[in-house]
Amino acid sequence: MQTVVFDKKPRIIGTGTIAGPKECAGVVGKYVDKSLTDDTFGESTYEKAECKMLSYAVSKAIENAGRTEKDVDLLVSGDLLNQIISASFTARDYDFPFLGVYGACSTMAESMAIAAAFINAGYYKNIVAATGSHFSSAERQYRYPLELGNTRPPQAQWTVTGAGGAFISYMGGGNGKKINAPAITMATFGKVVDFGITDVNNMGAAMCPSCAHTLLTHLTETGRSADYYDLIVTGDLGALGSRILKDLTWEKGVDIADNHVDCGEIIYNVIEDEFQGGSGAGCSAVVFNSYIMDKLKTGALNRVLFIATGALLSTVSSGQGESIPGIAHAVAIENI
Amino acid sequence: MQTVVFDKKPRIIGTGTIAGPKECAGVVGKYVDKSLTDDTFGESTYEKAECKMLSYAVSKAIENAGRTEKDVDLLVSGDLLNQIISASFTARDYDFPFLGVYGACSTMAESMAIAAAFINAGYYKNIVAATGSHFSSAERQYRYPLELGNTRPPQAQWTVTGAGGAFISYMGGGNGKKINAPAITMATFGKVVDFGITDVNNMGAAMCPSCAHTLLTHLTETGRSADYYDLIVTGDLGALGSRILKDLTWEKGVDIADNHVDCGEIIYNVIEDEFQGGSGAGCSAVVFNSYIMDKLKTGALNRVLFIATGALLSTVSSGQGESIPGIAHAVAIENI
Repeated sequence: MQTVVFDKKPRIIGTGTIAGPKECAGVVGKYVDKSLTDDTFGESTYEKAECKMLSYAVSKAIENAGRTEKDVDLLVSGDLLNQIISASFTARDYDFPFLGVYGACSTMAESMAIAAAFINAGYYKNIVAATGSHFSSAERQYRYPLELGNTRPPQAQWTVTGAGGAFISYMGGGNGKKINAPAITMATFGKVVDFGITDVNNMGAAMCPSCAHTLLTHLTETGRSADYYDLIVTGDLGALGSRILKDLTWEKGVDIADNHVDCGEIIYNVIEDEFQGGSGAGCSAVVFNSYIMDKLKTGALNRVLFIATGALLSTVSSGQGESIPGIAHAVAIENI
Repeated sequence: MQTVVFDKKPRIIGTGTIAGPKECAGVVGKYVDKSLTDDTFGESTYEKAECKMLSYAVSKAIENAGRTEKDVDLLVSGDLLNQIISASFTARDYDFPFLGVYGACSTMAESMAIAAAFINAGYYKNIVAATGSHFSSAERQYRYPLELGNTRPPQAQWTVTGAGGAFISYMGGGNGKKINAPAITMATFGKVVDFGITDVNNMGAAMCPSCAHTLLTHLTETGRSADYYDLIVTGDLGALGSRILKDLTWEKGVDIADNHVDCGEIIYNVIEDEFQGGSGAGCSAVVFNSYIMDKLKTGALNRVLFIATGALLSTVSSGQGESIPGIAHAVAIENI
């Protein structure tokens, strides 16, 4: 069994999100806590801006949960930069323990799953799970200096400038008061799946098989059908990846055409001749913790399966001729 | 409380280790499962050699536990390479889920702590925690191409070529049989501590404050005195770092002069005018899973506090003028 059940129902009692100008121009923009007009966030480097966004998301999640930093028992976080420096330097600014994780763009689901697992077991009471990314720091680390002005192929995605954090708690509300909030009821930890994709501009295709594997495993192990969920939200396969996922699951007899959406598809106004949508750890972190959580809180959605997907490559692995393995972790969030 | 108690006592029922020629020349050499005479391990690149070592450690831990790959529910692993490619590509070769972590050289303790937490909570029954590093892949990623032949200052440490894995189980033995094996009784997750060290050749000094913080917190929260433990083994502060740690804790009224040793100090024959000993995620992974575990299994040691320490820097963070934050996670391993 890859799926773990959280019978104590750890709840997401507050989230914090921040995103850049391009991200906030779309449908998600009005749901984030802070829209940046300047993607340097007043910092001297893009890496420092990324770190400052992540810190903002952590602090805002704590504030929106009606808690203070003193209430937090642990931060679970990671990011795309080498040696996850955004998460590490964010953690430096707080007086609570830190668990560093790396799951590429699957980090939001991975950190939420660990947080829920620790709270459900009674180890800690309040954990913040957070991640983020920055277009400009990712471009120069993974691809080319921005100054080169390289063109991008249409199958590429665009790394989201943004960060999101979730305050996950053993009880419903702030100040010891029990309130209703979406509960994390299950997590399905994913296997690494590699279909041999080597095109570093086609991450969606590289991550689809692992996403399909985690989704199908989750449904099989829980006995749930795909339409049990109001929404199966993946991140970040992009528009092309989303279609491939629908094909892969349909081939296995599971139809998700009506209740699937990808975070990478909805964060931007996607023009597929140009690009496939958003990617980056910040993509699903921003979309889930703002737009999706708003729908969960208002009851527009009551059962959501959030599957964040990661492409496990580095410039070195690709340079040495390796293909791109993918991973996907799923978290079930329900109003119960 | 940073400390978590594992009352179900998850046990380390098998370990696997591998190390390079320089590492096996010392006291630890005769305890590892495989001593390499060729540090490329027959691979075309050092990164592929590092990955192959990690795979060896995982497979050997499973074999030494008397189990098969089918018994494993989860792999928790990370490494020092950008985007933890050694761990990700190792995970690709197995048919069990993967949780990627990053804690620099604290990874062995971090992954063991997560594994024990998941098993103690009943989520999974058998988890492998593993990590490794390679001198040559680390040098060219973090410092200079080996071909330059740069000199190293005497306060520097030497990245260990090696890997270690621990098979952690809900019960004592293989084939459903209950046997005695060292139990993971507690974990103390560490905070990020930064004393402003900026010398990338003096990681031991950078990590000491976080190590002292985690150790002192562990003792305070558990009510244990330092001499409760037969051994407080840190990794990887090196010889200088080990002395600083003793000073820092002594200043707080805790004397560990008689029962402290550092993995970085014992893996090599340290000549302090030349270097301070070993470092790298593989250092504590190899020393703990071979030498220390041997002493625990024979009863020469019965109560060990294993504190792995990580320096949370990247070439980018140092290049942008940042200091080096440290983190340390502690795991108590006891024969009970």
